[in-house]
Amino acid sequence: MNAVYVAGAGSTRFGRHTDMTIEALAVDAAARAIVESGIDRSRIGAVYLGNFVSGPLNGKEVLAGIVAERLGLHGIPCTKVEGACASGGIAFRHACMAVASGMCDAVLVVGVETMMHASTPEITSALNCAMDNENDGPSGLTFPGVFGLAWRVHAQKYGTTREDIAAVIIKNKANGLKNPLAQMGADLTQAQIASSVMIADPLQLFDCCPPSDGAAAVVVSRRELLTDKARQQGIRVLASAQTSGSARISQHPDLCSFDATVLAAQQAYAQSGLQATDIDLVELHDCFSIAEIIDSEDLGLVPRGQGGHWAAEGRTGMQGDTVINPSGGLLAKGHPVGATGVGQIYEVIQQLRGEHANQVKGARTGMTHNLGGVGVACTVHILGADA
Amino acid sequence: MNAVYVAGAGSTRFGRHTDMTIEALAVDAAARAIVESGIDRSRIGAVYLGNFVSGPLNGKEVLAGIVAERLGLHGIPCTKVEGACASGGIAFRHACMAVASGMCDAVLVVGVETMMHASTPEITSALNCAMDNENDGPSGLTFPGVFGLAWRVHAQKYGTTREDIAAVIIKNKANGLKNPLAQMGADLTQAQIASSVMIADPLQLFDCCPPSDGAAAVVVSRRELLTDKARQQGIRVLASAQTSGSARISQHPDLCSFDATVLAAQQAYAQSGLQATDIDLVELHDCFSIAEIIDSEDLGLVPRGQGGHWAAEGRTGMQGDTVINPSGGLLAKGHPVGATGVGQIYEVIQQLRGEHANQVKGARTGMTHNLGGVGVACTVHILGADA
Repeated sequence: MNAVYVAGAGSTRFGRHTDMTIEALAVDAAARAIVESGIDRSRIGAVYLGNFVSGPLNGKEVLAGIVAERLGLHGIPCTKVEGACASGGIAFRHACMAVASGMCDAVLVVGVETMMHASTPEITSALNCAMDNENDGPSGLTFPGVFGLAWRVHAQKYGTTREDIAAVIIKNKANGLKNPLAQMGADLTQAQIASSVMIADPLQLFDCCPPSDGAAAVVVSRRELLTDKARQQGIRVLASAQTSGSARISQHPDLCSFDATVLAAQQAYAQSGLQATDIDLVELHDCFSIAEIIDSEDLGLVPRGQGGHWAAEGRTGMQGDTVINPSGGLLAKGHPVGATGVGQIYEVIQQLRGEHANQVKGARTGMTHNLGGVGVACTVHILGADA
Repeated sequence: MNAVYVAGAGSTRFGRHTDMTIEALAVDAAARAIVESGIDRSRIGAVYLGNFVSGPLNGKEVLAGIVAERLGLHGIPCTKVEGACASGGIAFRHACMAVASGMCDAVLVVGVETMMHASTPEITSALNCAMDNENDGPSGLTFPGVFGLAWRVHAQKYGTTREDIAAVIIKNKANGLKNPLAQMGADLTQAQIASSVMIADPLQLFDCCPPSDGAAAVVVSRRELLTDKARQQGIRVLASAQTSGSARISQHPDLCSFDATVLAAQQAYAQSGLQATDIDLVELHDCFSIAEIIDSEDLGLVPRGQGGHWAAEGRTGMQGDTVINPSGGLLAKGHPVGATGVGQIYEVIQQLRGEHANQVKGARTGMTHNLGGVGVACTVHILGADA
């Protein structure tokens, strides 16, 4: 297997882009990535596009080919991949596989989604496409409901409080305030969070990530194709894991853990030879505040049951033991579904370059965690800077 | 690269399955493929699912993971891939890549679509997701319109007649009559075709493939995992090509040719070391009667401009120079979009096994051609039986 390097990266701001088509957003991010890579377009051997619901929300499919054409990439295989909210991470993994296996010298990966042109019922209905509607549908659960249940169980089993969970929000919103790509960073207090509108008891407004528009893109390549600058940065994919888990919440033995995350993390640590304590920063899938707590435990970053307490003690903050979501995460940076997984990679790249607006000091290794549905699909990637 | 073998295959009948969910159809085909392969489920390393519009038409995404769960496949990467009508072929190619690269010992590929529960406007609207709606949308063209234009040009340039084109239909409908999986085989006359209802001038009813429900599945693996029977059959993937072309009909210099097909065929011949004359049968993408004529020329099976004449002369029939669509093709077998590409592979497998109900005598090599949108995505595969 060839080593897979980051050649270039690009991203739009996450937020409201109702003045742009979904194609235009994807092209914006992708063109930045290609230009930064300095790689001639003729060397790009494939395009992977991560997207979740362009069909239901935009009436558009086959976006991989459409976007490639606008970028002047002709004839090469262009594939949309979908795994609900993990679509972006899955796209990145397939780009890595194509370079690692020697099939391509360089591959473009783009993640994109637009949601903000749609009504709230339309968005809710589209997001519910990520559930096992035949089995779990009759329960009437939506995603806030699922994570509300998880919160209840976590609180009962581990004593996690509203204040613990609010600490995640305060941290991520503050991080988002420093990230120019973030949709809704904020300086929030415990009181503001506790008094915000109820969404799905016990989840309140600030516990939920917003719907978003956005796109992110990365060019990965063999080392030989890198610019001098990129070669010096030497940002390499150390692990790439994709797993699946039950699509039915009713089949989860523990509402406070996602098997797919646990397995993907094990595989990623094994591939990279690293341990959780070796990771300088993590961009993980905090679609809800409680999700960050669960994810941090599933990834082995925090002892089981301690996610809330660690957050409250600042141990996952910018100066903490393990820096989680310095970008602001989904809660503050936003969650344009198909873009999120690629956006996480983009964030880690900026950190490893030492060029992030909310820089983790001395960051040498970063992890991303992208989770789809109720844990039906998961990717974990570890990136590192060559010594 | 490891050699990639066919370990097992399964398919539902194509047609009306409004009594089954899309998941159930996929599971039906996939379970047959797995059982036939004799491969323990623990050896299956990934699932690729080809599907086009389960989002808009079924309100369901993330089907790869949902279907895997029902099959008792746990933890492995499950990915939906989409490239409009080429989704199934793209899924098959990714399964092959995973085995060829050594990442997996065996991979399950499933193609599935359900359309017949939807109204005609819903289906038309869903199919139009395969167009570049920003650019070509304002023209008001739908797919029958596009292929109607192609017909006009082919007739003008090459003298192709209504009778030539009807010969394709008569052949494919007759083949379909012998295929128990086909949706609408028929014994048709020139007069019946010429008097059928007009769809998009000059395309009449029998010039258009029907909407369909259906699923097809294949398990591909390294040779070591094959049953004795499969090893004896020795059906191997000799070439796997995926290409892209313009998504805008307005950018096609020639309405009677798809660049993506021409390129994919070149690549497939080069990979396999075979020429068009070495291919015993071809399952190609006859979404409309005129499409078979164009495809047969683009694939180099028939001299440019002669597709209609060859069909009229019976040279693409069961006793012809090159047997095209012995399954009945999309016109007669049906076109459950995401299933079609995998269904074509299924058909070739049965032919190479010598077990097809409409057997091409002595078939040793078969080709499939799966085309998406107005040629935005294409796959060409060549399979052969070991000597």
